[in-house]
Amino acid sequence: MSSTFIGRRLRLSIFGQSHSEAIGMTLDGLPAGLPVDTEALQAFLNRRAPGQNDWSTPRREADRPEFLAGLKDGCTCGAPLTAVIRNTNTRPRDYSKLKITPRPGHADYTAEVKFGGFQDFSGGGHFSGRLTAPLCVAGGILRQALAVRGITVDARIWELAGIRDEGAFESSVAEKSFPVVDDAAGEQMRLAIQSARAEGDSVGGIIECVVRGLPPGVGEPMFDGLENQIARLVFAVPAVKGVEFGAGFRAARMRGSEHNDAFCVNAGRVETVTNHAGGILGGISNGMPLVFRAAIKPTPSIARAQQSVNLKTLSPETLTVEGRHDPCIVPRAVPVLEAAAAVAVYDMII
Amino acid sequence: MSSTFIGRRLRLSIFGQSHSEAIGMTLDGLPAGLPVDTEALQAFLNRRAPGQNDWSTPRREADRPEFLAGLKDGCTCGAPLTAVIRNTNTRPRDYSKLKITPRPGHADYTAEVKFGGFQDFSGGGHFSGRLTAPLCVAGGILRQALAVRGITVDARIWELAGIRDEGAFESSVAEKSFPVVDDAAGEQMRLAIQSARAEGDSVGGIIECVVRGLPPGVGEPMFDGLENQIARLVFAVPAVKGVEFGAGFRAARMRGSEHNDAFCVNAGRVETVTNHAGGILGGISNGMPLVFRAAIKPTPSIARAQQSVNLKTLSPETLTVEGRHDPCIVPRAVPVLEAAAAVAVYDMII
Amino acid sequence: MSSTFIGRRLRLSIFGQSHSEAIGMTLDGLPAGLPVDTEALQAFLNRRAPGQNDWSTPRREADRPEFLAGLKDGCTCGAPLTAVIRNTNTRPRDYSKLKITPRPGHADYTAEVKFGGFQDFSGGGHFSGRLTAPLCVAGGILRQALAVRGITVDARIWELAGIRDEGAFESSVAEKSFPVVDDAAGEQMRLAIQSARAEGDSVGGIIECVVRGLPPGVGEPMFDGLENQIARLVFAVPAVKGVEFGAGFRAARMRGSEHNDAFCVNAGRVETVTNHAGGILGGISNGMPLVFRAAIKPTPSIARAQQSVNLKTLSPETLTVEGRHDPCIVPRAVPVLEAAAAVAVYDMII
Amino acid sequence: MSSTFIGRRLRLSIFGQSHSEAIGMTLDGLPAGLPVDTEALQAFLNRRAPGQNDWSTPRREADRPEFLAGLKDGCTCGAPLTAVIRNTNTRPRDYSKLKITPRPGHADYTAEVKFGGFQDFSGGGHFSGRLTAPLCVAGGILRQALAVRGITVDARIWELAGIRDEGAFESSVAEKSFPVVDDAAGEQMRLAIQSARAEGDSVGGIIECVVRGLPPGVGEPMFDGLENQIARLVFAVPAVKGVEFGAGFRAARMRGSEHNDAFCVNAGRVETVTNHAGGILGGISNGMPLVFRAAIKPTPSIARAQQSVNLKTLSPETLTVEGRHDPCIVPRAVPVLEAAAAVAVYDMII
Repeated sequence: MSSTFIGRRLRLSIFGQSHSEAIGMTLDGLPAGLPVDTEALQAFLNRRAPGQNDWSTPRREADRPEFLAGLKDGCTCGAPLTAVIRNTNTRPRDYSKLKITPRPGHADYTAEVKFGGFQDFSGGGHFSGRLTAPLCVAGGILRQALAVRGITVDARIWELAGIRDEGAFESSVAEKSFPVVDDAAGEQMRLAIQSARAEGDSVGGIIECVVRGLPPGVGEPMFDGLENQIARLVFAVPAVKGVEFGAGFRAARMRGSEHNDAFCVNAGRVETVTNHAGGILGGISNGMPLVFRAAIKPTPSIARAQQSVNLKTLSPETLTVEGRHDPCIVPRAVPVLEAAAAVAVYDMII
Repeated sequence: MSSTFIGRRLRLSIFGQSHSEAIGMTLDGLPAGLPVDTEALQAFLNRRAPGQNDWSTPRREADRPEFLAGLKDGCTCGAPLTAVIRNTNTRPRDYSKLKITPRPGHADYTAEVKFGGFQDFSGGGHFSGRLTAPLCVAGGILRQALAVRGITVDARIWELAGIRDEGAFESSVAEKSFPVVDDAAGEQMRLAIQSARAEGDSVGGIIECVVRGLPPGVGEPMFDGLENQIARLVFAVPAVKGVEFGAGFRAARMRGSEHNDAFCVNAGRVETVTNHAGGILGGISNGMPLVFRAAIKPTPSIARAQQSVNLKTLSPETLTVEGRHDPCIVPRAVPVLEAAAAVAVYDMII
Repeated sequence: MSSTFIGRRLRLSIFGQSHSEAIGMTLDGLPAGLPVDTEALQAFLNRRAPGQNDWSTPRREADRPEFLAGLKDGCTCGAPLTAVIRNTNTRPRDYSKLKITPRPGHADYTAEVKFGGFQDFSGGGHFSGRLTAPLCVAGGILRQALAVRGITVDARIWELAGIRDEGAFESSVAEKSFPVVDDAAGEQMRLAIQSARAEGDSVGGIIECVVRGLPPGVGEPMFDGLENQIARLVFAVPAVKGVEFGAGFRAARMRGSEHNDAFCVNAGRVETVTNHAGGILGGISNGMPLVFRAAIKPTPSIARAQQSVNLKTLSPETLTVEGRHDPCIVPRAVPVLEAAAAVAVYDMII
Repeated sequence: MSSTFIGRRLRLSIFGQSHSEAIGMTLDGLPAGLPVDTEALQAFLNRRAPGQNDWSTPRREADRPEFLAGLKDGCTCGAPLTAVIRNTNTRPRDYSKLKITPRPGHADYTAEVKFGGFQDFSGGGHFSGRLTAPLCVAGGILRQALAVRGITVDARIWELAGIRDEGAFESSVAEKSFPVVDDAAGEQMRLAIQSARAEGDSVGGIIECVVRGLPPGVGEPMFDGLENQIARLVFAVPAVKGVEFGAGFRAARMRGSEHNDAFCVNAGRVETVTNHAGGILGGISNGMPLVFRAAIKPTPSIARAQQSVNLKTLSPETLTVEGRHDPCIVPRAVPVLEAAAAVAVYDMII
């Protein structure tokens, strides 16, 4: 596996399976003296944590990281930072039959092919969305470190079940229990989730993330530009099937005269009149807000019967997935994308 | 800069500026004994080369790579493979004023901020689309190596200026001068390009790339999955602003019951009935065709006057870009995306 | 810091400080299905563990790794393998004054300069020899995995306090409490250690490590050859100040006609008559035993008064180091070098 | 192969075979605006170049690098720097029979095993000492860049054929045709080389390299410390069989009270009274001169008949190597080690 992100300076190693003793992360390459506000970090982690409301899985985990190393008196000490979260509320019996009859839309089948039957199947193993918790520990800390430098990383639901959050995304919606700008749209989204749940189904959506305060000149051309790095991290989040920057796919239908962001001067700073580029030109930040969106597929675990195959007999089998699942992971994925972006951006500026 | 792609086994180093002595690449990590069909490679490179038709820049470059090292008797010898392409047809005078007055939509401004005035500005320097030629040398060779293993990498224009190529993409369109399935749609696209050119403007589009023949089990979870690797390479292509796999952004509007690809057995092989996942589950191939699309923004270099800023005086300036430019790079980018995909996929299977 | 070893396939992340909650490691990139014999591993770790005899520090730590993730039913499951060892027997009060008055021969001063006062100074922090315990967890597991393939990794004390272990190193001395071939020489070495301890001093030595069973053709030329990789890992062990392969520094005094290992055929296999090359030609194994030696400096922590400097006042200060220290770490370093070699070699053969 | 050095910031890709069209290098990760004095670089390369005196091979190569990319107006422009050296004076006929009957002490056999007969055997291919020329291009440029920062990298012959250069190594001997401090010792060394040549034999030696002016605090603990990085690069130089820092292997015979470098204050700076540590504690520079030595084995190519094996018939064969060879590569290796050290150190300080 390659569960180690090797950035320019940072190395982020994420470990654990859904039902192993613990999950966790080691973040290597941090400077010494970085303050870590564990209370604010916990609040950040709580935005992702399951079992807190009506639209997510009833599995409850405290998701309280224990820092084993790398912290001293509330600051990084220069040594690798390691945090673990114990897995307490596991119900392995839910997953026994999926080893032979893989769930559509899940990694059950591909993992079985790759790991030849040795994988820790239970709960999705290392492929579980639960592994985004340690990503949030790392990203939550780096998001704090960016904030100290005046760089904010905020995401919102941009669309869910086809319902758009039309409002301008000017500031964080992090304090909201449902991270949208337009609460009326948010209410519709929640209804769509409940309706999907009632029908034993699930819905997906699109998350928008904005990084503000990034100075111009951050990034690289070619293989390690801002887009490459962010995309590489964002595709580490299960269920992400697309990433776009600025106008993104809509850019493909624009003409150059419309898409090119004209330069202007604002308060002595070079800016652009529009921001179709999403703050990135040639892989390098131009000082405008860095904007990207990620497409989240509908949760593959649904209550409805689905068509699968028995891998031993190669005969068709109808599968009804039991266990506890989110009818929509989009709201919980919002801080996860902030975390992924924070890792990518912080790695580019140290 | 980070113009070295560090894959699992491959290291691809791309060098050169638009108007330097030469551009080229070193590909390290290849096994010994890989045959290189230089004639087929040249045909592949010609699909990208400029100046061959009415929709691309009149700049003509032979784009014939000279192999300096790594080849012996038509096969790789295990040592790094290095090829260079001399820059012969350069007109540096076209670019003199852009150092102070950056072109909207280009990396002129961000490169100037990052490299503090030392960059080789001429022709776009290292940021020029011309640097996709060495990527095509590397990718063209690896595409051959994949073909030997029964894995094909083919792309087509999926949409251009809003016009869709609706046809099912069953086989390569590489032999066509305009790479679409539906030639009638292709004709409309060409008209749209000519119309944009006539108006001093440009258009963008979406390219679809399909990798067939990939066995199940290729890839990794988390940071180095197929999606992460492909995205990392595809965003190295200038003008790409979005990448999606399988149903991609459309997945966000589907329900799980619709998006999940039901498993079935076909000729003794596990397959899926639909392919919304684009052949990837959990970062790992499932044996179905790997499908991705990339959004290409309209060429930023347009003949129309644009609003810019004089970086010395910080006063507004109207800029009219001279020089030779494509009104649409989408057709030429088709083999480039095949090359990027071939590098990503080959690196995952050796 | 860079406490993550990035090999060809393996990523080994080591974390912890001497007095942090725990120390540990994550080993990413292992294949699934590798059996881990935890009892044999514990025996291996015990060879390194402190407090077990008269020549090492009285600090006692159980050094029992807890596997948090990556193991299932005694085998690797493909997910990263994480093990932690709790730090239980810490006496932080021993180290309070060393922050201002650095110990000669230690990293106290350089760490203070680098980490600007934020480092976790206590017990040597991340620089402590204690961090070789997680290296031994990783290396001990990989040494088992190599043994399954018929590759053995064994080390012995080659010289200690100037006393040579002259015997031919044909097989493992791992089961011995003092790892030498010639027990009489070993007895002399132990006397030398006791004598140094009695005088408040310490001694160093040279460890020889032999890897047998490695097939020819393993390795790479240039930057990632066997020598480069082994050296890179061996210099991660505190107190190592030199590494040599085969005849090593003695080769510098040989003539080519003496040093060149003549080829011969033995039982249908190409071998060499002598093994001055230490089993490596051009960075690649030649099928002969891979032999290297590492010079271990005398333990810097000695009871004698030493000359230091007060970093605040920049005035000279006489320092007497308290705390518990080994008068010689060479015996305990023997399995550590086996571990380092096992990581390097295993990474080259998968 | 892995002929790409991946440092913290730098990526150095070295390509070419002894008899390929060209050899060369791409150095990626340099800041923009670094001046390159090509004349001084040529003088540096001439110190390594063959055919200039009575102790090296009569093969003459101009070894004049052509910069294909990355330079503008004598400065780096931020894009990767690529230089090639054409191979002009190749005599491939000299090497025809060595493919079947490998030379003792060379990589002929191991390369044949690894590359399965596809390697470019001629002249040693990619394993040839000739590939140290591009390393010197990279290192020569970085040595200039270090000098601008007050950091000098100088090496000398420390021992050759058992003859020591006893003099204190205070400043560069780069301007000397034979790089020793004590010219009388140097004369003896030259006689030893001539004597070896006359007898169809070769001699080895030890090179000492000193980096002065390095501030304290440069480096890392564990896997990417100064020692690890330097060792990794130095073992990329063919014929190096050992590396030691400071007192190195002699440290193994010292007591702690003797080896520990006492701290003192000199002109307001923390220094050490002795420098047995070679300027490195815990992988991090302590402000004292960084000192290391590398053991160079005697040139394996000797005129004398040697015992080899016919790889096809597996029968013994007596081999007499023809072609042009150095009876001693130690003098020419002096700038190569400076280059390796410069790459390692520069990568640690940017």
